[in-house]
Amino acid sequence: MTEIKPNVFDAQCASREVLAIVTHRWSMLAMYAIGTGTLRHHELKAKIGGISQKMLTQTLRHLERDGLVARTDHGVMPPRVDYTLTPLGLTLLDTLGGICVWAEQHLGEVREARQRY
Amino acid sequence: MTEIKPNVFDAQCASREVLAIVTHRWSMLAMYAIGTGTLRHHELKAKIGGISQKMLTQTLRHLERDGLVARTDHGVMPPRVDYTLTPLGLTLLDTLGGICVWAEQHLGEVREARQRY
Repeated sequence: MTEIKPNVFDAQCASREVLAIVTHRWSMLAMYAIGTGTLRHHELKAKIGGISQKMLTQTLRHLERDGLVARTDHGVMPPRVDYTLTPLGLTLLDTLGGICVWAEQHLGEVREARQRY
Repeated sequence: MTEIKPNVFDAQCASREVLAIVTHRWSMLAMYAIGTGTLRHHELKAKIGGISQKMLTQTLRHLERDGLVARTDHGVMPPRVDYTLTPLGLTLLDTLGGICVWAEQHLGEVREARQRY
């Protein structure tokens, strides 16, 4: 059996979908917000400006499904649910953080380029 | 005058828009495809599987506008137009490449997580 090497330039390759998952706006910000720590739902909601309750819930569910975020329900009342990055999610953190930091650092240059255009 | 530090977690911060620009599916693949080299329109079209002529043209125009890609028209007939990353675009290349490589390398783990879920 021939194993085909994944290739994001191949339209049929499933890595394309993975690329879309990890660069989804809210998923990226949620993973970057969790970072190496542990956050509760309301802490994430407070940290990620502009995210709705519904979108955060959906984003976390997708990240959990895709093995990037671990959800821990402490089974207490009132409910306490924590989110951390999984070992797989942690392998992505530096890269995602790098893109976020790039956007913050080069914002002015992109803006100037646009004005020159 | 107080300079506000850019912050991707701030919904009002323009770095959010920059983040969207650089993680846009086709923009990311176009920049990664150009890499440290020089490519012509039809070479990019051939390299990036699934991109339409129209979408490639639009993507390259946006990347040029945002100062990430330089377009060189050699002014000859038949037309010859090259694309390279600008110095600004090059500062992003390793990070973008990192995300693409991550997607290729961890595709199986994401798929397995999804099956377990």
